Amino acid sequence: MTERPLRFGLIGTGRIGRVHAASIAADPDSTLAWVCDPIVEGAHAVAERYGGTVTDRADELFASGEVDAVLVASPTPTHVELIERAVDGGIPVLCEKPIDLDIARVEALRPKIAASGVPVAFGFNRRFDPAFASARARVAAGEIGDLEQLAIISRDPAPPPAAYIAVSGGIFRDMTIHDFDMARFFVPDIVEVSAIGTTTFDAGAREHGDFDTAVTVLRAASGVIVTITNSRHSAVGYDQRIEAFGVDGMLQVANAGTSLVSLSTARAVEAKPPYEEFFLERYASAYAAELHEFIRLVRGEPSTSPTFDDGRAALILADAAQRAATEHIVVQVDLA
Amino acid sequence: MTERPLRFGLIGTGRIGRVHAASIAADPDSTLAWVCDPIVEGAHAVAERYGGTVTDRADELFASGEVDAVLVASPTPTHVELIERAVDGGIPVLCEKPIDLDIARVEALRPKIAASGVPVAFGFNRRFDPAFASARARVAAGEIGDLEQLAIISRDPAPPPAAYIAVSGGIFRDMTIHDFDMARFFVPDIVEVSAIGTTTFDAGAREHGDFDTAVTVLRAASGVIVTITNSRHSAVGYDQRIEAFGVDGMLQVANAGTSLVSLSTARAVEAKPPYEEFFLERYASAYAAELHEFIRLVRGEPSTSPTFDDGRAALILADAAQRAATEHIVVQVDLA
Amino acid sequence: MTERPLRFGLIGTGRIGRVHAASIAADPDSTLAWVCDPIVEGAHAVAERYGGTVTDRADELFASGEVDAVLVASPTPTHVELIERAVDGGIPVLCEKPIDLDIARVEALRPKIAASGVPVAFGFNRRFDPAFASARARVAAGEIGDLEQLAIISRDPAPPPAAYIAVSGGIFRDMTIHDFDMARFFVPDIVEVSAIGTTTFDAGAREHGDFDTAVTVLRAASGVIVTITNSRHSAVGYDQRIEAFGVDGMLQVANAGTSLVSLSTARAVEAKPPYEEFFLERYASAYAAELHEFIRLVRGEPSTSPTFDDGRAALILADAAQRAATEHIVVQVDLA
Amino acid sequence: MTERPLRFGLIGTGRIGRVHAASIAADPDSTLAWVCDPIVEGAHAVAERYGGTVTDRADELFASGEVDAVLVASPTPTHVELIERAVDGGIPVLCEKPIDLDIARVEALRPKIAASGVPVAFGFNRRFDPAFASARARVAAGEIGDLEQLAIISRDPAPPPAAYIAVSGGIFRDMTIHDFDMARFFVPDIVEVSAIGTTTFDAGAREHGDFDTAVTVLRAASGVIVTITNSRHSAVGYDQRIEAFGVDGMLQVANAGTSLVSLSTARAVEAKPPYEEFFLERYASAYAAELHEFIRLVRGEPSTSPTFDDGRAALILADAAQRAATEHIVVQVDLA
Repeated sequence: MTERPLRFGLIGTGRIGRVHAASIAADPDSTLAWVCDPIVEGAHAVAERYGGTVTDRADELFASGEVDAVLVASPTPTHVELIERAVDGGIPVLCEKPIDLDIARVEALRPKIAASGVPVAFGFNRRFDPAFASARARVAAGEIGDLEQLAIISRDPAPPPAAYIAVSGGIFRDMTIHDFDMARFFVPDIVEVSAIGTTTFDAGAREHGDFDTAVTVLRAASGVIVTITNSRHSAVGYDQRIEAFGVDGMLQVANAGTSLVSLSTARAVEAKPPYEEFFLERYASAYAAELHEFIRLVRGEPSTSPTFDDGRAALILADAAQRAATEHIVVQVDLA
Repeated sequence: MTERPLRFGLIGTGRIGRVHAASIAADPDSTLAWVCDPIVEGAHAVAERYGGTVTDRADELFASGEVDAVLVASPTPTHVELIERAVDGGIPVLCEKPIDLDIARVEALRPKIAASGVPVAFGFNRRFDPAFASARARVAAGEIGDLEQLAIISRDPAPPPAAYIAVSGGIFRDMTIHDFDMARFFVPDIVEVSAIGTTTFDAGAREHGDFDTAVTVLRAASGVIVTITNSRHSAVGYDQRIEAFGVDGMLQVANAGTSLVSLSTARAVEAKPPYEEFFLERYASAYAAELHEFIRLVRGEPSTSPTFDDGRAALILADAAQRAATEHIVVQVDLA
Repeated sequence: MTERPLRFGLIGTGRIGRVHAASIAADPDSTLAWVCDPIVEGAHAVAERYGGTVTDRADELFASGEVDAVLVASPTPTHVELIERAVDGGIPVLCEKPIDLDIARVEALRPKIAASGVPVAFGFNRRFDPAFASARARVAAGEIGDLEQLAIISRDPAPPPAAYIAVSGGIFRDMTIHDFDMARFFVPDIVEVSAIGTTTFDAGAREHGDFDTAVTVLRAASGVIVTITNSRHSAVGYDQRIEAFGVDGMLQVANAGTSLVSLSTARAVEAKPPYEEFFLERYASAYAAELHEFIRLVRGEPSTSPTFDDGRAALILADAAQRAATEHIVVQVDLA
Repeated sequence: MTERPLRFGLIGTGRIGRVHAASIAADPDSTLAWVCDPIVEGAHAVAERYGGTVTDRADELFASGEVDAVLVASPTPTHVELIERAVDGGIPVLCEKPIDLDIARVEALRPKIAASGVPVAFGFNRRFDPAFASARARVAAGEIGDLEQLAIISRDPAPPPAAYIAVSGGIFRDMTIHDFDMARFFVPDIVEVSAIGTTTFDAGAREHGDFDTAVTVLRAASGVIVTITNSRHSAVGYDQRIEAFGVDGMLQVANAGTSLVSLSTARAVEAKPPYEEFFLERYASAYAAELHEFIRLVRGEPSTSPTFDDGRAALILADAAQRAATEHIVVQVDLA
């Protein structure tokens, strides 16, 4: 740790960009050197709090010679171009998911990244959640024997605005994408996808031809079956659970409760409130760990950062699920 | 309750037949009048404990004029003929699931039963489990608002012998059939079935072309999605859970623990042993309630006994799942 | 088990008497031969259901020559005389707690019982509760190392009528007596008693100078400290828990929940209703086990039935607690 | 919050002093201005990390004119003199518990503090634990009706060194002191104390005539009974629980688990590891809240900081418990 902190250029200062800014400032191995947002007020607000030179043009950031790594938290359609520019400049990049909504653009970018040798990582933060990481490590350590079934439950507290739905690429590419990566975190070799989607409560989803509820089932070459249960709403709060079932037992990751206090009365035994609020709180430590793992990757240390190919695989699965749910078929996939 | 107890003829004295014999003897509204089994030693053993005249020929039982109702617990291939004979004789019948492994024979029997007016009920005992019944009643009472997703987890402790697998009709018709009925207990209007089956641990299943692990997803006309997770084994013990997710919340049915005692040490907090042992124990009270509900049906009182059409619907879903899993397709069904 | 069933004479057919009648009838090793109650209608009601000759005079029962054992479930003031008569007749007796409210009468009876060699057992049914028995066995097996602290929580759902309080001997002799025996089940060698009682909610207790709330602390010669927490009411339901704390860990016995179903909503995660209802339900299996253990004692088989000296020790502790709470002192005791 | 941050002088840079230094640095309303420790290396280490001028003499800190408040985290025997000096200088002080081991010195200091009007607060951090604070607020809000019994369980993971025991003042003044304050947080009007202490496992405690295990029972004028269960060790980890029992129900504060992951196997259902590690982790947020509440006190804003009289009351209760346990008596106390 005697190395000098990594100087980050942050592109995008929306909600998730601000989370990363805070992580960069808090990690002793990184500093915020440049902050870029076309809505320059956002960049100024971030820089005032965490430091960094402000710009509204990514060009300037890349040309500065003052950034050792770029963190891309801008809207999805800008990701491919910004990754390309970073790789061209030999600058490592940590990019928010998804790479793009169009797999063709992803495939086109793939050879360049492979050839470049420049570290490129993707923001699948849940891999770094202590509970999920521990469950996966314990499965890998054989605590439940061979894995046979994996159930991922992932429900958001409330649906996003209709305007967001319109450009999101649909529930599978926008929301389930995290669960596809989580599935592959435990079981990389997925070969078959089936999915059912329905639209029962969200007017925004209905308006834009999207689903608000979905169940996706994945089959791995090894025979492991993964079930992903999604909903765009959850009265109970953010519902993020995993159940790994194996030959010798079962590992369960429960929701994060927010209180140690429970009340028993004549009517009931209750703990309130039910679950941890939304994702910034639930995954706060995961974002910090994700950043630090990327720093290790940049430094050439052993790292478990999700790769470009992890990002590509998640998108292929999302496309397959979208097709399965829309056409009522089972879709075979090749993630190689 | 001033009516005289119902005189039962029991056909079949294997494991499940003996459970029913005990229930008949214990219910103040029923007595065991005749006991039939071609392996007559079994019939004698039951009659010694719970009373009743013994025979190895069903003919004799039907001709006796001493049975008010028949309980069919013999092997599946005999069910259709025994039901038919009972109905012809005007004798109400409670038959163990499934009706038959061949839907064609079920469809052929259907009009006769409908025309006869004789009460025919099927042994989907889980509807009578206090926990599942309570969850369903609470869903119906609106405690979680409109139902959107239902997850049924159903895993047996250990696979049956290969010889049983050979004549079982496969995991969907033999094991999931209970879960199909449970699905319809909550959500009757199923229209679409997808299913993935794998064979990862059981040599008997492999030998007979069966699956040992399966996930089935059902879509209802209303948009509700049902997920059924099955395994032929479970190191943890009999794993029988339900999660009903609705607009306003979630109802969960946990596994039945067998101990109030938990141990905390430097390594862990543990409760042992994990779950209730196999189905006779887990569903003991359900079998008794099932019998009593059938008695009410016979007496013309309001009853929730599963009907012939419930048995037929479960078999149609099982056939559809078998096809979906084998051909890797999504299957549309019509339960009308 | 080829011995002929034990013929019981039951004296007293109030609530607890009827429980014992049902246990006697259900145990294959016992039958109900005689039923006695001065309110002879109660005896008739029991005999109609479980069999037995009816009388309103205990004399007749003892003189019949048809009882192999007596179960005394009559009011406390009759216990000493009935025990004495049984012992004089060489008839084993299982007597409900407490022996008597006056320790002098107990001490006076003690030598006769010791000299007689007739089996005399007391109804401390909680020793036979599967959870408590398991916890004690696991402590004895060393699962938590040397025991250091034991916490017993024992709260009734609601206070008894004032008329019952008037003759109960006070909370320590009437209610805590069970907990004193439970304390001694884990830690026999108690040498010191302190107790605080208050009267905060029950008019009946106030009227008769009794406490409705109490905490008793016992010190054993070995240094183990036992804490007993009592209340005459509990909105949550019957509250019966134990926590055994040792060098290597902790064993906890939770309350018996009555449902596997839990509801999660935007406000709370709740399981309802909270706890098992009153003692006949909570300890149903304990009463049956208690009876069977007594049958073993009568037959000369190894038995863990609580003895006369266990009943005496509990009363000595109750007297000490009463004095400690009333005089605000710490009381030394000698249970030898 | 437009006020300038409060400049703190920190006296004492041991374990707890460093916790406070971190809190002072992290709170936007405070800065670390001076750091004092006779072992000046400790002061330098703190100042390097969190800022501040270093000295080994408290005189210099007080004379600097650069501290708006003093945080006393030095050894107990120095507390009274440092508080006095701060009050003489009109400087608010937040002092670690206990005030002193000698109640006479505390009583002597009391009038001066009362007369001075200088804010003096004590470090009973547990009042600021979110779970305990919530439980107390919910009791105050009437969620369980009138409070009748309060159980505090407080066990450390492992005993301190014998050298620490020697100067600690004994378990009641050193460890239970926190629980006495917690008892008074819920029930201020304590009038009676009984206590049993034993020494069963710790050689250090035995050597210095101290107890390693204790149960203390407090009675309030209102009739509420408080039970405090202590041990100097706990294999399970830091054991910090509260159970408040009232007319309408019960509020329970569970131990803080460190993992959302649980494992079910053929033998058991277990969550590991059991409980949150030691107090700096368990009460991290409490220390920060405690500091902030003191800042509010200094600024004249409404504050719930424990007062000098709270510190005095806890010591009186500790003295009473020590006497009760040693002399085997019940002790009446007057906290007015």
